[in-house]
Amino acid sequence: MKKFQAEIDVMPKKEILDPQGKAVTGSMKNLGLSEIHNVRIGKHISLEIDAENEEIAHIKVDTACRNLLANLIMESYSFSVKAV
Amino acid sequence: MKKFQAEIDVMPKKEILDPQGKAVTGSMKNLGLSEIHNVRIGKHISLEIDAENEEIAHIKVDTACRNLLANLIMESYSFSVKAV
Repeated sequence: MKKFQAEIDVMPKKEILDPQGKAVTGSMKNLGLSEIHNVRIGKHISLEIDAENEEIAHIKVDTACRNLLANLIMESYSFSVKAV
Repeated sequence: MKKFQAEIDVMPKKEILDPQGKAVTGSMKNLGLSEIHNVRIGKHISLEIDAENEEIAHIKVDTACRNLLANLIMESYSFSVKAV
């Protein structure tokens, strides 16, 4: 068994309103950072996987994303896996 | 003015307990994914910046992270900026 590290981003889908992101975009103006816009806020998840190889680690992370980490109706996910 | 896109990760510091991550690590077992462990959950933020150049965009994102997006007592952040 080898050890792998996965870095996962789970973001609200483009067509879904992101009220938290909208609120933060508004706060940027109050901070004097009106050049910042279109803020979108999601989750970043890091985790470790024991697997025989990178392909199996990849499949396990994908299963975890689909079944637990992301709500596929409202969110999309992307991830990278690397050996550690 | 050019347009830049920033991708920011805000994560709980290593020495800080992450109860949400702990709970998700436990749920992995129930999903049959006991090879996944050490789950840590933070935020992923994407945003757009108008700036003269990449260095200025970088400084603006860093200011936003320090003053609004991350709680530096409990969280650390990292980000990348690229022209779009």
